[in-house]
Amino acid sequence: MNSHCTTGGWVLGNVIDGTQAEYVRIPHATNSLYKLPGNIDLAEMVVFSDAFPTGMECGTLNADIQPGSSVAIVGAGPVGLAAMLTAKLYTPHPLVIIDKEVKRLQHAKKLGADKVINVAEPDAMEQLDSVVDGKGFDCVIEAVGTPTTFDLCQKLVAPGGSLANIGVHGQKATLDLDKLWDHNISIKTRLVDTVTIPTLLRLFQAGQFQSSLLTHRYAFSDILKAYQAFQTTSKDGILKVGIDF
Amino acid sequence: MNSHCTTGGWVLGNVIDGTQAEYVRIPHATNSLYKLPGNIDLAEMVVFSDAFPTGMECGTLNADIQPGSSVAIVGAGPVGLAAMLTAKLYTPHPLVIIDKEVKRLQHAKKLGADKVINVAEPDAMEQLDSVVDGKGFDCVIEAVGTPTTFDLCQKLVAPGGSLANIGVHGQKATLDLDKLWDHNISIKTRLVDTVTIPTLLRLFQAGQFQSSLLTHRYAFSDILKAYQAFQTTSKDGILKVGIDF
Amino acid sequence: MNSHCTTGGWVLGNVIDGTQAEYVRIPHATNSLYKLPGNIDLAEMVVFSDAFPTGMECGTLNADIQPGSSVAIVGAGPVGLAAMLTAKLYTPHPLVIIDKEVKRLQHAKKLGADKVINVAEPDAMEQLDSVVDGKGFDCVIEAVGTPTTFDLCQKLVAPGGSLANIGVHGQKATLDLDKLWDHNISIKTRLVDTVTIPTLLRLFQAGQFQSSLLTHRYAFSDILKAYQAFQTTSKDGILKVGIDF
Amino acid sequence: MNSHCTTGGWVLGNVIDGTQAEYVRIPHATNSLYKLPGNIDLAEMVVFSDAFPTGMECGTLNADIQPGSSVAIVGAGPVGLAAMLTAKLYTPHPLVIIDKEVKRLQHAKKLGADKVINVAEPDAMEQLDSVVDGKGFDCVIEAVGTPTTFDLCQKLVAPGGSLANIGVHGQKATLDLDKLWDHNISIKTRLVDTVTIPTLLRLFQAGQFQSSLLTHRYAFSDILKAYQAFQTTSKDGILKVGIDF
Repeated sequence: MNSHCTTGGWVLGNVIDGTQAEYVRIPHATNSLYKLPGNIDLAEMVVFSDAFPTGMECGTLNADIQPGSSVAIVGAGPVGLAAMLTAKLYTPHPLVIIDKEVKRLQHAKKLGADKVINVAEPDAMEQLDSVVDGKGFDCVIEAVGTPTTFDLCQKLVAPGGSLANIGVHGQKATLDLDKLWDHNISIKTRLVDTVTIPTLLRLFQAGQFQSSLLTHRYAFSDILKAYQAFQTTSKDGILKVGIDF
Repeated sequence: MNSHCTTGGWVLGNVIDGTQAEYVRIPHATNSLYKLPGNIDLAEMVVFSDAFPTGMECGTLNADIQPGSSVAIVGAGPVGLAAMLTAKLYTPHPLVIIDKEVKRLQHAKKLGADKVINVAEPDAMEQLDSVVDGKGFDCVIEAVGTPTTFDLCQKLVAPGGSLANIGVHGQKATLDLDKLWDHNISIKTRLVDTVTIPTLLRLFQAGQFQSSLLTHRYAFSDILKAYQAFQTTSKDGILKVGIDF
Repeated sequence: MNSHCTTGGWVLGNVIDGTQAEYVRIPHATNSLYKLPGNIDLAEMVVFSDAFPTGMECGTLNADIQPGSSVAIVGAGPVGLAAMLTAKLYTPHPLVIIDKEVKRLQHAKKLGADKVINVAEPDAMEQLDSVVDGKGFDCVIEAVGTPTTFDLCQKLVAPGGSLANIGVHGQKATLDLDKLWDHNISIKTRLVDTVTIPTLLRLFQAGQFQSSLLTHRYAFSDILKAYQAFQTTSKDGILKVGIDF
Repeated sequence: MNSHCTTGGWVLGNVIDGTQAEYVRIPHATNSLYKLPGNIDLAEMVVFSDAFPTGMECGTLNADIQPGSSVAIVGAGPVGLAAMLTAKLYTPHPLVIIDKEVKRLQHAKKLGADKVINVAEPDAMEQLDSVVDGKGFDCVIEAVGTPTTFDLCQKLVAPGGSLANIGVHGQKATLDLDKLWDHNISIKTRLVDTVTIPTLLRLFQAGQFQSSLLTHRYAFSDILKAYQAFQTTSKDGILKVGIDF
């Protein structure tokens, strides 16, 4: 559990600045650096530094997804979609993605969601219930980080099911213990430990995840355009932005 | 997971009346009746119908107690103490019991708590922190059922730790997701499935748990006195009351 | 673990005759009968009574297959292929099938093996080593049932790996404890409990496994031809034979 | 799994000489050195370098010992007894120790075995069967390292049970796959990784294991006598020998 070392854990971009340089000193490097295989598309690698290991560890593994599990993922941003793509390594069914932005839902559908549901529609809860015959979902993943989306998740989880929180929350949430105390559920939180990166890279080399989250690429000379694009992610269907160099 | 059968689960004393008769019809009996071994003290058996399997399944197993785990149990009633006695099957250390009634804490100490802490004392949190050098507890068990005690539990659980809820909650609670989202914790709820009863009985026959929670016994002819005693449990150090017949 | 009930377990075709009738009395039916969904292709269902649950429980689950695991399956008969198809629910890589019959290996390749290796070829061991850079396989499945094939499996399993035995053995085998005592491996055996049938059926309805093992179908009036075909399975690429009625 | 690092693992006393010096250079020290707490009896620590972590990891954990498990341990030397003492952290019952040396069995009884059985007695198998009503043992630990003792272990393990091998084997063994192929058992091997040392030390400080395996102590000036004593372990009830300095 590198994420909770007393010195170490999430350092770059958190307690010290991130990096953009030819050479860089990485504290506790043996716990967080992985050697990339040769002949790999470097721009693609941006999604393996955070989105995929976070989706896998905080989402898929914490939600205990198994073959045939019913899965609901709330939030179709890069991390929610990374959770979906890593969840699909276990062949769950059905897998439903929930969001309120149409473009993101379309992207989720294209990347393999069995069903997408727009939570802004008035009958969203009925649609969700009908997917699982009113039984709730075995595995629910929160990939937004608000009290409202957490609340939706706790209403979706079936007796015996798991709720994995990925979202970065800035506020407290309300926990319906009056309903859930006897529901045999688990709720899990996690800061990514990045321990799954080697496995995910091996699967990438075997053909998984290719071109899935990296929607836009820029030449090194266009790096400022890349940053501009990255700032407008949710509107224009931009998920992750890569730089070729 | 018998507790969530669509017909079945917790029936007696919940959706139909409990029993007090020579013969009784038990719905779904194959899922919930266990044959008692011969030559057993029948009055002692009252603690195996609910307190011990609940402490074991909803507390000890859900908190994932292991040898050497630090454990905090909030609530020293019969179920909290049953959680403690079943937790001790795994040799955790240290095991701390928290309550606000002195008599219950004394009982907990006598039954084997490494330390008892009176939450009514102004420096209770400091005492708790000092037990684990400010690192939090690996395993926390909620055995009361109020927003306040749940709140105490979520403050006690260490990064990577587990919070097992046993308490029957009548209200919602506040979940500190702003602090816990990155703490790698799990929170689990469960209605007892009673699947551990055979193991617990076998351990009872091997000498575990004896005379631990059954603090008072009455002859069958004094059954009304037994019921009166049962109603005053928390004041007078009464935990469970048995009837000899 | 229904397979080891003191009365029950594998009864049909083992301790009593199997069935071929319009109505039949099934002992311990609640432990072994699953209701088929409506609108299902009944002939396909023959593979869910044994091949798929056996491949899943005795092979895939016992070998602890995970995303990115390297997998070697020795034996490309119906059960070995069922192990492969259920293993692929977890997205292992690479997955290698080993047999000595060319037709079966071709079938395995067609059904999705990453690589097939003919153990009759003189450099088979070198081929196997090169797949995993001499490190051994994380997960090895024995699906034949002879001392020779078991021996191959124990030579293939990596330190820390798992060997799942499916094969029905008529003889003792030699266990290389002089080499394996410090290899951190597990060897598991299992008689199918059939507990995964509901999940496998749900995945079948979602599109998995379709037409994979059922290579031949006969009309009810041609049932004798079906039996003849079933007796010649390994030669002619026949895996499972279905009857339409 | 430090034991199988490509460089590292069991180095001292295996691929390089062990140590007996004031200062020593330890390769891969971050994976294998643990800081001792202050105020600890240093002579006692000899049992935490190998016997206890080996008993715990290769025996207790690999045999998946749980509260109420029936346990048979074949071999009452220091490692077999360490397996017993760590197994008891989980409150199994009954726990039986098997050996052919009376003194060792007496020691095992004194350290807490529920029953000891001398395998040299003609009715040893009947005695073993009667302990578990002919059902076999849930957990069996091999702590000798010969084909004969491994054979005894595979005959003792119950359907659904686990056999953990600790013994260092110099020869191959015979595996009764003709009987065990359908018994739902697991057989596990392991070279100690020493990852449980911190937990075991914490439990030692809490009062576990004290004076259990360290049967003899010598002053530093008598170190040659200590070595002589160590060479005669099995005859005279000597288990582990400590040096005070």
